[in-house]
Amino acid sequence: MHEPRPVLLLHGPNLNLLGRREPDVYGSTTLADVDERARTLGAELGLRVDARQSNHEGVLIDAVHEAMTDFAGVVVNPGGLTHTSVALRDALAAIPVPVVEVHISNVHAREEFRHHSYVSGIATAVIAGAGTLGYELALRVVADRIGP
Amino acid sequence: MHEPRPVLLLHGPNLNLLGRREPDVYGSTTLADVDERARTLGAELGLRVDARQSNHEGVLIDAVHEAMTDFAGVVVNPGGLTHTSVALRDALAAIPVPVVEVHISNVHAREEFRHHSYVSGIATAVIAGAGTLGYELALRVVADRIGP
Amino acid sequence: MHEPRPVLLLHGPNLNLLGRREPDVYGSTTLADVDERARTLGAELGLRVDARQSNHEGVLIDAVHEAMTDFAGVVVNPGGLTHTSVALRDALAAIPVPVVEVHISNVHAREEFRHHSYVSGIATAVIAGAGTLGYELALRVVADRIGP
Amino acid sequence: MHEPRPVLLLHGPNLNLLGRREPDVYGSTTLADVDERARTLGAELGLRVDARQSNHEGVLIDAVHEAMTDFAGVVVNPGGLTHTSVALRDALAAIPVPVVEVHISNVHAREEFRHHSYVSGIATAVIAGAGTLGYELALRVVADRIGP
Amino acid sequence: MHEPRPVLLLHGPNLNLLGRREPDVYGSTTLADVDERARTLGAELGLRVDARQSNHEGVLIDAVHEAMTDFAGVVVNPGGLTHTSVALRDALAAIPVPVVEVHISNVHAREEFRHHSYVSGIATAVIAGAGTLGYELALRVVADRIGP
Amino acid sequence: MHEPRPVLLLHGPNLNLLGRREPDVYGSTTLADVDERARTLGAELGLRVDARQSNHEGVLIDAVHEAMTDFAGVVVNPGGLTHTSVALRDALAAIPVPVVEVHISNVHAREEFRHHSYVSGIATAVIAGAGTLGYELALRVVADRIGP
Amino acid sequence: MHEPRPVLLLHGPNLNLLGRREPDVYGSTTLADVDERARTLGAELGLRVDARQSNHEGVLIDAVHEAMTDFAGVVVNPGGLTHTSVALRDALAAIPVPVVEVHISNVHAREEFRHHSYVSGIATAVIAGAGTLGYELALRVVADRIGP
Amino acid sequence: MHEPRPVLLLHGPNLNLLGRREPDVYGSTTLADVDERARTLGAELGLRVDARQSNHEGVLIDAVHEAMTDFAGVVVNPGGLTHTSVALRDALAAIPVPVVEVHISNVHAREEFRHHSYVSGIATAVIAGAGTLGYELALRVVADRIGP
Amino acid sequence: MHEPRPVLLLHGPNLNLLGRREPDVYGSTTLADVDERARTLGAELGLRVDARQSNHEGVLIDAVHEAMTDFAGVVVNPGGLTHTSVALRDALAAIPVPVVEVHISNVHAREEFRHHSYVSGIATAVIAGAGTLGYELALRVVADRIGP
Amino acid sequence: MHEPRPVLLLHGPNLNLLGRREPDVYGSTTLADVDERARTLGAELGLRVDARQSNHEGVLIDAVHEAMTDFAGVVVNPGGLTHTSVALRDALAAIPVPVVEVHISNVHAREEFRHHSYVSGIATAVIAGAGTLGYELALRVVADRIGP
Amino acid sequence: MHEPRPVLLLHGPNLNLLGRREPDVYGSTTLADVDERARTLGAELGLRVDARQSNHEGVLIDAVHEAMTDFAGVVVNPGGLTHTSVALRDALAAIPVPVVEVHISNVHAREEFRHHSYVSGIATAVIAGAGTLGYELALRVVADRIGP
Amino acid sequence: MHEPRPVLLLHGPNLNLLGRREPDVYGSTTLADVDERARTLGAELGLRVDARQSNHEGVLIDAVHEAMTDFAGVVVNPGGLTHTSVALRDALAAIPVPVVEVHISNVHAREEFRHHSYVSGIATAVIAGAGTLGYELALRVVADRIGP
Repeated sequence: MHEPRPVLLLHGPNLNLLGRREPDVYGSTTLADVDERARTLGAELGLRVDARQSNHEGVLIDAVHEAMTDFAGVVVNPGGLTHTSVALRDALAAIPVPVVEVHISNVHAREEFRHHSYVSGIATAVIAGAGTLGYELALRVVADRIGP
Repeated sequence: MHEPRPVLLLHGPNLNLLGRREPDVYGSTTLADVDERARTLGAELGLRVDARQSNHEGVLIDAVHEAMTDFAGVVVNPGGLTHTSVALRDALAAIPVPVVEVHISNVHAREEFRHHSYVSGIATAVIAGAGTLGYELALRVVADRIGP
Repeated sequence: MHEPRPVLLLHGPNLNLLGRREPDVYGSTTLADVDERARTLGAELGLRVDARQSNHEGVLIDAVHEAMTDFAGVVVNPGGLTHTSVALRDALAAIPVPVVEVHISNVHAREEFRHHSYVSGIATAVIAGAGTLGYELALRVVADRIGP
Repeated sequence: MHEPRPVLLLHGPNLNLLGRREPDVYGSTTLADVDERARTLGAELGLRVDARQSNHEGVLIDAVHEAMTDFAGVVVNPGGLTHTSVALRDALAAIPVPVVEVHISNVHAREEFRHHSYVSGIATAVIAGAGTLGYELALRVVADRIGP
Repeated sequence: MHEPRPVLLLHGPNLNLLGRREPDVYGSTTLADVDERARTLGAELGLRVDARQSNHEGVLIDAVHEAMTDFAGVVVNPGGLTHTSVALRDALAAIPVPVVEVHISNVHAREEFRHHSYVSGIATAVIAGAGTLGYELALRVVADRIGP
Repeated sequence: MHEPRPVLLLHGPNLNLLGRREPDVYGSTTLADVDERARTLGAELGLRVDARQSNHEGVLIDAVHEAMTDFAGVVVNPGGLTHTSVALRDALAAIPVPVVEVHISNVHAREEFRHHSYVSGIATAVIAGAGTLGYELALRVVADRIGP
Repeated sequence: MHEPRPVLLLHGPNLNLLGRREPDVYGSTTLADVDERARTLGAELGLRVDARQSNHEGVLIDAVHEAMTDFAGVVVNPGGLTHTSVALRDALAAIPVPVVEVHISNVHAREEFRHHSYVSGIATAVIAGAGTLGYELALRVVADRIGP
Repeated sequence: MHEPRPVLLLHGPNLNLLGRREPDVYGSTTLADVDERARTLGAELGLRVDARQSNHEGVLIDAVHEAMTDFAGVVVNPGGLTHTSVALRDALAAIPVPVVEVHISNVHAREEFRHHSYVSGIATAVIAGAGTLGYELALRVVADRIGP
Repeated sequence: MHEPRPVLLLHGPNLNLLGRREPDVYGSTTLADVDERARTLGAELGLRVDARQSNHEGVLIDAVHEAMTDFAGVVVNPGGLTHTSVALRDALAAIPVPVVEVHISNVHAREEFRHHSYVSGIATAVIAGAGTLGYELALRVVADRIGP
Repeated sequence: MHEPRPVLLLHGPNLNLLGRREPDVYGSTTLADVDERARTLGAELGLRVDARQSNHEGVLIDAVHEAMTDFAGVVVNPGGLTHTSVALRDALAAIPVPVVEVHISNVHAREEFRHHSYVSGIATAVIAGAGTLGYELALRVVADRIGP
Repeated sequence: MHEPRPVLLLHGPNLNLLGRREPDVYGSTTLADVDERARTLGAELGLRVDARQSNHEGVLIDAVHEAMTDFAGVVVNPGGLTHTSVALRDALAAIPVPVVEVHISNVHAREEFRHHSYVSGIATAVIAGAGTLGYELALRVVADRIGP
Repeated sequence: MHEPRPVLLLHGPNLNLLGRREPDVYGSTTLADVDERARTLGAELGLRVDARQSNHEGVLIDAVHEAMTDFAGVVVNPGGLTHTSVALRDALAAIPVPVVEVHISNVHAREEFRHHSYVSGIATAVIAGAGTLGYELALRVVADRIGP
């Protein structure tokens, strides 16, 4: 039997507020719930999910750099950095593993400035608007890409 | 036990070529394969998947109109119409059921004109770049939204 | 006494849903009601109104081509094609009779992409936001232009 | 029997030249003719039409302010101010009665800068290109909106 | 003890409607209230406030010209002219005293066209969204700039 | 001696009006004339020309799909779809044979929106403004590309 | 000998400040000086110069309307209205006499928004940056156009 | 007597240089001076001001998150992040207390890229160009909004 | 029998490198080959081809000026000047003979800045992407336009 | 008595065609006529006019460089280079004498791309639409600027 | 003999990956190599190079602030922050020493969004595409500017 | 010992004025000085520098073409052609040797139109703002690229 493959689940700025911020947009599930469910589904899919959150771009980039050697895939919700961070894009572009971008809300149905993502251009796949279920779908994409 | 809920799986222009057109972009799975897998997963999720494909915008709109009464959800890959059809958008906006937009390739990493979708603004969720697996993820979103 | 002059009343995509789709935007009158009233007012104005609806751009263009010989005027609500169809514009530009463009809602107060119409540039007149009354106003314009 | 409802018919800059300026664009009807016909049709529709013209934005705004209490509807051809006056837009947006915007020529078929109207976004309805008949159509919209 | 310094408080188009127009946006305070409070606070600050309102751009410009010799500062809410009047900007740029621009509502959170102000580029300071309190803050800025 | 090579000659919306529509722009030659001359020249060049016209985008796409197996080249005048149809572009991009885009008039000297073609980016060659002679030139390009 | 031909010399907003406002940009000549010199040169050229200034767009438009019958030419410096007034443009476009647009400073070397003039598109000639001499040059253009 | 209400005074990148950086733009007051004055005025207004500065976006966001529970209002000068940080905007949008944005200089009179603020769209009020006095004005807005 | 009609074949900057520069884009045919073939086909078509090449815009313009009197048609490949030279456009617009613009590669499939041509707007016809065959097609257009 | 001051009169590409090219736009006066009149008026104004024309940007720049030492002013009609030549702009910006830009036609009333001039931003004055009289007006500006 | 002058060599996000990330774009030299060479060349040029790298914008800004007093020059490769960080620009603009911006790759030949740099506008010099040699060139510029 | 490698040092329009034009922008070094220093440094680096200057785009292109066979590298300061010449770009793109673009001033800190370079996209490296030292740095890049 295979060793579970390590996957980095990375949450960007303000996602620590999940369940507390604008519940009509983001729902009432907390980030701890999300991470728990991700770990559970991950285990089913043969993935070991390591979840992190930071409001600091630099901390997120540092974490991505670990994926150059320590992770087999990345699921990332860059939060507001999605639309503004070339540095995070460059970090994600530099790693040789699948990157799946997730947005809880449907960013395409919100403000104009949320319609452009610096990450999408270098991501493997992009999932938006599926609520917190999106993270689980993203793990399925990672599992599909890295194979058993 | 519930009756399976009917879901419309709608493929737009050129998707009939799937498996034959640019396999490096779209893979070698055929549309028949996609539909078969969707029906199989649908059954697991309590959904009865009705799959259609057309190169005619009007035929697609007519099909969407059926969803006003006959379907509990729509999974749609509008193909090239994604970027150009307000009429299809209007049809999808008019129906009272969840709409999940799927793109096999990551449209955000392709030509500039593929970065805008008229459908995304009114869709429930959007999934791009997950390959044909995207259709299965979309069915999971529909199942999640319409509940058991 | 004059023979009634034939006028084509052309409804584009999704207008078959009239009365069923977003009643707060489009009202509860059905397309059959609209056509009936148009025929009644047309008769008063000396016009014989031939009403058609299609979700197919090609069918609409074919109908416009009939106006090269068989109609004295066209009243058209191109629906979502208003904003996207050069082909329909070209068809309407090719016919030698007055063309009046009608929109039930005030498109100028809706999404940005509805502010541009390919048809307006070659139409005789444009009426928006008058509700289904707009069709009747359009017939008055046609009657005024083609004279008794 | 109802008292006729007061309606303000407001003509913006240069419309005093009507019938004298560029007759191929605007026709040979004078503004006095227009107002006369408007009063006549208004009477039929149960409306008392009060017509004014000014080349002064401020005078037009002052007149619109009267509509907060003294008029049941406004028909306005803002002339060149259509494309440039946020102040007039704000005045029209502030009054609680239907506003119908009229343009004698089809502004959509003229210079690019005439394709945008600050008024349309807050108007009830917009009529362009119907010649001076447009004013009569506008009165019909007002009558339809304010009811008997 | 100093003579109070004269300050021009200038209100542009539609501000005469204050308290009557869209109270959810502009509040229920009337312009007379605003002016009264401004005079009271002005007196405390050693300023004599001369308040004027006009819907006429020309009248506003004429008033600004008086400030070349008769006023020590200007507080101006240009209303809709904010976004459209180069002439008013030029008048305000020509006078050698501090100019503070005030907007009752937060214009940056409203329509796109309200995000640009011709006045801001030549103003000393800009205050938006503070409600009618904004006028009082503006007087404090003037007092601060012209000194005792 | 070689079997003639099959070439698809595809005419988009409104080209059925050729010779009847705006003769100062498009000339008085009819589509039947064009097709006849194309067949004649084709025969000289060792090509068998199969000519079709449709006002329906879907019909055009279906025809292009036949070129995946049944044609050695495509000459296409997409009419108004040139500027609006990503779906037609995608169909033409999917086929492994030379595609030559033809416009009877010089689209670059007409309205701004005719200056962009979705087809040109994936066409082998583009010919505009040569009148109906352009079709013959296009056949020469196809013959040149596919060789004897 | 000819009767002198009447020419309207029209100064827009803020030009009454000439000689007092920003002398490094506009010089120290006053408007009275300008008008005096214009009358003197006009007399030499067989022109009777009638000079007016207003800060009110409406007053300027009213004056232009007089030129439909009472003037043989117009020299106009629209001040800040240059860049914002379609209404003034429309007035100037409506009169059947030469219109020469003058700017004292070189507007092309100033802020971006001064690079576009609504008047230039319908003017006979445009002169900018020649200082107050520009008015005299403009009179020479008028004299040249209307002949002796 | 009321307990003073806690208000967060947040200074973004480079504001620690205040008094040392470009004194002609920002003046010679130091940040310590600013904070001291804010605390003094705050006390008068019944506010307890907690001042912080950081050059780290993440630190600022963390501080804003505290305002979800620990502060009754926020006064923020986001420095250069004003124009680039969606993440900071999202943090400020997530908290249920008034947010007043302050800029010491008049950003509207500086480089083009400083004319857009991601924060303004979700702020209660915006104050620019009032120098360091702006912070005091902002506290008055907060006091006004949260009441006694 | 007719005298052959003189046609100017004009090659712009860098076309002297043909066959040596980027053969995958431009092929291996040299300019001498192109000119030779053009002269041969020209003779068949009753045209005498005078071929010139220059890297100097001024030399090209001088040559075009000769066409005012000495040539019956011009075939021009303006090279990089296509996208930048209004002066060359003006020269070509000034001559009373047909102008056919040729590009060896399909400029529409290359960098964005190659999608706009200053020449196309005043050309009779435009041919791109047909390789060096394009020159021969262009001669056929000239022959067709100037007749026998 | 003063020595006449030397002035360079520089004509750009295609102006050698004056009187022969599009007489409805440029009139029938030839360049020789223009230069002759310029020399005559120049003599009256105390200027010695040295007139040159070239279709070569480099020749024009070389001539401008002479003005660093040999000329007291430059009158330049850059023709099509107006809109495209930064190099010519830089040359004109480098010389320490007045530069007056002249256009025979009113460029502001022609194609959009003629509305921008690289020269205007560094010119002393700009004159457009005055026909060939414009050159004489330009000489008057030079005379005015360099004094007696 | 002079004391070596201290120079800050600052590397932005992801540059710690140098030699490991996309070697075809960035080469195989590591950051330690770069810093070593910089120190060596610096010593020759009389400069003491203090090299730092961070993925945190705030850390970079803090370091720049040290240059207000502790450094005689800055060489900075802002990585992805180049295109997005106004805060870093402001920090660099605030220090009174030469700033040289370096990019290892030629950013002008990469994605569109890399063509704009917030730093370049306030840098002394900019060097791109010279590989890691660029850092050495930058030190030469600093040495040249600060003199011996 | 190696033969020195020939390098073309190419100066575009107006660079002959170096030392005479705007010394605050370009310094007082003359072009002869620059070339002398380049030859000296070149000799040290094993390069034989052949320096040329022209105000003629065509002359510059001709010189670049020599580099197809006669030079091992090119250092080019295209002057104003940087921003406007596709023809020069195409010439430089056609040669198989390193091209280093130099600008004496920091073009990124000057007018907007100087921020785009047609050459940068195909250059090996770009150096701006280093003064005339930039040429020496460029030679170092060439030496580095072509090796010993």
